[in-house]
Amino acid sequence: MSDTEPEGPSSGAPSASSERTTVRRGVGRADYRMEAVLAIIDAAPICHLAVTTGRGPLALPLAHGRIDDTLYLHGAPANSVLNAGLDSGVCATFTVLDGLVVARSPFHNSMNYRCAVVMGTPRRIDGKEKLPALRAVSEHVAPAWGHGRAPSEQELRRTLVVAMPIEEASAKVRTGDPLDDPEDLDGPWWAGTVPLTSTWGPPLDAADLGPDIAVPPAIASFARAGFRSEVG
Amino acid sequence: MSDTEPEGPSSGAPSASSERTTVRRGVGRADYRMEAVLAIIDAAPICHLAVTTGRGPLALPLAHGRIDDTLYLHGAPANSVLNAGLDSGVCATFTVLDGLVVARSPFHNSMNYRCAVVMGTPRRIDGKEKLPALRAVSEHVAPAWGHGRAPSEQELRRTLVVAMPIEEASAKVRTGDPLDDPEDLDGPWWAGTVPLTSTWGPPLDAADLGPDIAVPPAIASFARAGFRSEVG
Repeated sequence: MSDTEPEGPSSGAPSASSERTTVRRGVGRADYRMEAVLAIIDAAPICHLAVTTGRGPLALPLAHGRIDDTLYLHGAPANSVLNAGLDSGVCATFTVLDGLVVARSPFHNSMNYRCAVVMGTPRRIDGKEKLPALRAVSEHVAPAWGHGRAPSEQELRRTLVVAMPIEEASAKVRTGDPLDDPEDLDGPWWAGTVPLTSTWGPPLDAADLGPDIAVPPAIASFARAGFRSEVG
Repeated sequence: MSDTEPEGPSSGAPSASSERTTVRRGVGRADYRMEAVLAIIDAAPICHLAVTTGRGPLALPLAHGRIDDTLYLHGAPANSVLNAGLDSGVCATFTVLDGLVVARSPFHNSMNYRCAVVMGTPRRIDGKEKLPALRAVSEHVAPAWGHGRAPSEQELRRTLVVAMPIEEASAKVRTGDPLDDPEDLDGPWWAGTVPLTSTWGPPLDAADLGPDIAVPPAIASFARAGFRSEVG
């Protein structure tokens, strides 16, 4: 993920940037349009949440959901990274890896990827906002919420949910071929890309599933339609 | 990624743990064996590197490589997250997402995944260690190093490479079915998993590739053999 990158103006108006979310390397690949950020948040099945703790930096993978321009995360009430984030602020990083970029020189090897970064300080939510937030997280990957039993009051109390506005954000995207040095283009070395695709497979019944309970259509069709990352 | 998790003894002897890498939630899924940590580092095509900056926590995706129990990362000399990590210390997080876990109650929805966390303070490397380190990063995904031209002295100078011992580390793995409440098992709701698989596709020639240059066997066979995450 570190070839020589084109330096140039970012595409689109800077609508989601701040001083600390300004992309510092490979600025030609930066994109501050909110729609670019949201598209990557929606495409990534999980995020990595980075926080600062008394023991140093920490990043852990978390499921996430989104309603409009609010990001939702959830976990157990004692979840270490969520609780630390309420104090330290967070960096939520959403990455979709699209492929390997093989250049004529290893120096220009790279990856094709889409990455969005959202910074801010989450707030704990309770009350009426909690149920739709949990539904957004649950349905971020698959529209499975409606098929099961509703959560109980006790289950809601036993879940920590935080919200953060998607305001300070940036996206960085690399697509396409390697960018080799001009003098290498006539060399005998192969150059190209190897695409990486992620695909949801057919649903598998739980071993303890009773007889005659079919996969809900929403889950069956989600898995058929699949999540396929784009060829980079 | 936050269902009710089995609490129990971790498997294997604690050989890679420290106070700050002790898993605090879902301790039954924690694994401190070095071999478990290394297997996840090897299976993840990229990592997320978390650091602490003057502007707050930051995590960005990076390519990585490994020789024995040393982790290598590289980037441009001004790479923000690598340079911050030399000061603040880092948390390198390696995640492979294996599937969606659909429970009878959304409260027990989860993901199947493999995650390793390595903490420490990297050191900048130069001299004789640099070339093998770059090769390890370059070949972490595909054995493509030997097919191209060798890096020049100038290219080596223009690359920042850091090394970190894989000493303070832990792994956390979730596999298998949802863990529903006993009283829900007779309900009418479907439960199961939806596996997620990542696959490398056939290599694509760069548009500026000259005639009669074939895909190197090492890259062709890598893409054929593919990277397939295990069904969770």
